[in-house]
Amino acid sequence: MIPRIGITLGDPAGIGPEITLKALAELSPLTASGDFSVVVYGARAAIDATARMLGTGHPVLGPDVQAVFPQIALHDIAAPAEPLAPGSVTAEGGRQAFAAVKAAVTDAMAGRIAAVVTAPLSKEALHLAGQPYAGHTEMLAALTGASGSVMMLAHGRLRVSHVTTHVALADVPQLITPQRLTRVFRLTATALRGLGVARPRIAVAGLNPHAGERGLFGHEDAQIIAPAIAAFDDPEVILSGPHPGDTIFVKTAAGQFDAAVAMYHDQGHIPVKLLGFRIDAETSRWVGLSGINITLGLPIIRTSVDHGTAADIAGQGIASPQSLVEAINHALMLARLRCSSPPESRANG
Amino acid sequence: MIPRIGITLGDPAGIGPEITLKALAELSPLTASGDFSVVVYGARAAIDATARMLGTGHPVLGPDVQAVFPQIALHDIAAPAEPLAPGSVTAEGGRQAFAAVKAAVTDAMAGRIAAVVTAPLSKEALHLAGQPYAGHTEMLAALTGASGSVMMLAHGRLRVSHVTTHVALADVPQLITPQRLTRVFRLTATALRGLGVARPRIAVAGLNPHAGERGLFGHEDAQIIAPAIAAFDDPEVILSGPHPGDTIFVKTAAGQFDAAVAMYHDQGHIPVKLLGFRIDAETSRWVGLSGINITLGLPIIRTSVDHGTAADIAGQGIASPQSLVEAINHALMLARLRCSSPPESRANG
Repeated sequence: MIPRIGITLGDPAGIGPEITLKALAELSPLTASGDFSVVVYGARAAIDATARMLGTGHPVLGPDVQAVFPQIALHDIAAPAEPLAPGSVTAEGGRQAFAAVKAAVTDAMAGRIAAVVTAPLSKEALHLAGQPYAGHTEMLAALTGASGSVMMLAHGRLRVSHVTTHVALADVPQLITPQRLTRVFRLTATALRGLGVARPRIAVAGLNPHAGERGLFGHEDAQIIAPAIAAFDDPEVILSGPHPGDTIFVKTAAGQFDAAVAMYHDQGHIPVKLLGFRIDAETSRWVGLSGINITLGLPIIRTSVDHGTAADIAGQGIASPQSLVEAINHALMLARLRCSSPPESRANG
Repeated sequence: MIPRIGITLGDPAGIGPEITLKALAELSPLTASGDFSVVVYGARAAIDATARMLGTGHPVLGPDVQAVFPQIALHDIAAPAEPLAPGSVTAEGGRQAFAAVKAAVTDAMAGRIAAVVTAPLSKEALHLAGQPYAGHTEMLAALTGASGSVMMLAHGRLRVSHVTTHVALADVPQLITPQRLTRVFRLTATALRGLGVARPRIAVAGLNPHAGERGLFGHEDAQIIAPAIAAFDDPEVILSGPHPGDTIFVKTAAGQFDAAVAMYHDQGHIPVKLLGFRIDAETSRWVGLSGINITLGLPIIRTSVDHGTAADIAGQGIASPQSLVEAINHALMLARLRCSSPPESRANG
């Protein structure tokens, strides 16, 4: 069976439609040869405006994306014909982004698509549209009825899952609980098995500087994280830590571990983006956006770019589709492994 | 005048003595030619034991370090003749590390040496020895009578100063005050001028994910950090932010800013070490330790390695002196600039 991947456009005023069309152009040899098919979830107005902006000079994209890629279907989100101003943050943009994700999740839950790949949305626009979610991850958990989910970022050998993400730093320490830690350890191990790692080596970062340096800076590393690691009961997982936050990612990126567990957003995001992102200092333009986001703990497969809407460069035709291409490829890998594996080794089980 | 650099050995059971001897060997053409001279602060027993461990097969080092490097003096710290077991954490190790730093600071304050470069000590050993300091930085502030100091890490173009360092993560938010921020902005600008940057571009990181994303995650970015940036009154400094923590270091490492300001230890340490450190995943050995630590706000020049005692590889002869060599070179640069600059542009003023 040819896997069918759903791609949501994200906020139509961000770079989502642009990187989607560019990624589809880049992957068109694979869709053309029947490796996989795609359903794009979003407003036709946004796609048409983006195709016009990219111009007919573009090697593949014309004004009618469906005519160019017959293997690509559009699930059109009802929307005004007038496109939104590039870079704007509006309730309409948030509404369209949410509607696209909701439609894609419905199709994924019903088995009509094998995975959902999401382009970036604006959390602020989402809130203007009356959707209370802190981000995609929280929205997907609610829409799929999952009891919670875990964000894993990946770039090359550096895979990092997060115990907390979109919360104020002041709220992080109280959220580091044995239950949460154990759930992240388990989902990380399951995801790694789903990616083909039979005996996952997982390193857990400390919360405090130097992982607390034996109790000198904060009590959580010694009193909560270390006991949770010791109590983890899967003999097929090599779980270690808490490791000092400032060296664990050097070791993981070098291949000493299959994944790291970060305690909070910036602790895990800083290393993945430092290795995956490139900016041209002269023009302040992002020239490389590599790295992806995998949501663990959902009943569906979901991957994503690991960057934002990039409102500052939206509508200019200069956004890099690299991260989205990787996210699509990763979704395909997970979908194929899930189809060929017994249920207990599923990536998102 | 030939600058005289003081080097403290750090904890004698760590890699401090080893990297000191290796760094001096590497820099011996410069000391031999009279570029600079060195005073080593530490126990002769630790130096002798390390020279024996490194062996006479070493191209430069023999059992009597002073005979080999006549430009190198030893300020001997009274200590037992029996060396400490490599990797051990003891009150005696902490006592020697503290005594070396105290003697070096005394000499620096009196103008007998131009700068202090410190090898790593164990904070735990320091505490066993009854010294209450959270680390070198806090100790140096107390010993020099400075009202406080600021840690700047540097690797290549990535320079990062820290608003907080060795405190529990739970204590960080309340320490982000306008006074502290302004002091760090000012000291960072002064240090950059001391390093030859006439009009410093300084980027300030946010405390919360996405720098709070306009108030969605935590209030500190909008209510404390942004106003402190707006109120900073040096027209010759290009101060910007708060920038999201997960992309600010990509931009700074690319040269878009001359330095970044991190709000807490791991936020600033993760990117510098990720770019500067290298580990061999097969052997779990550190094969590269690049990057340095500059203490701002002291009445003396002080640089340091940016790694720890590496107790796991102490006594094996495999430690890399790279970071210490860079710290010595940086101390020399700062000492020469201070000697040739008017007082108002001093790096640590």
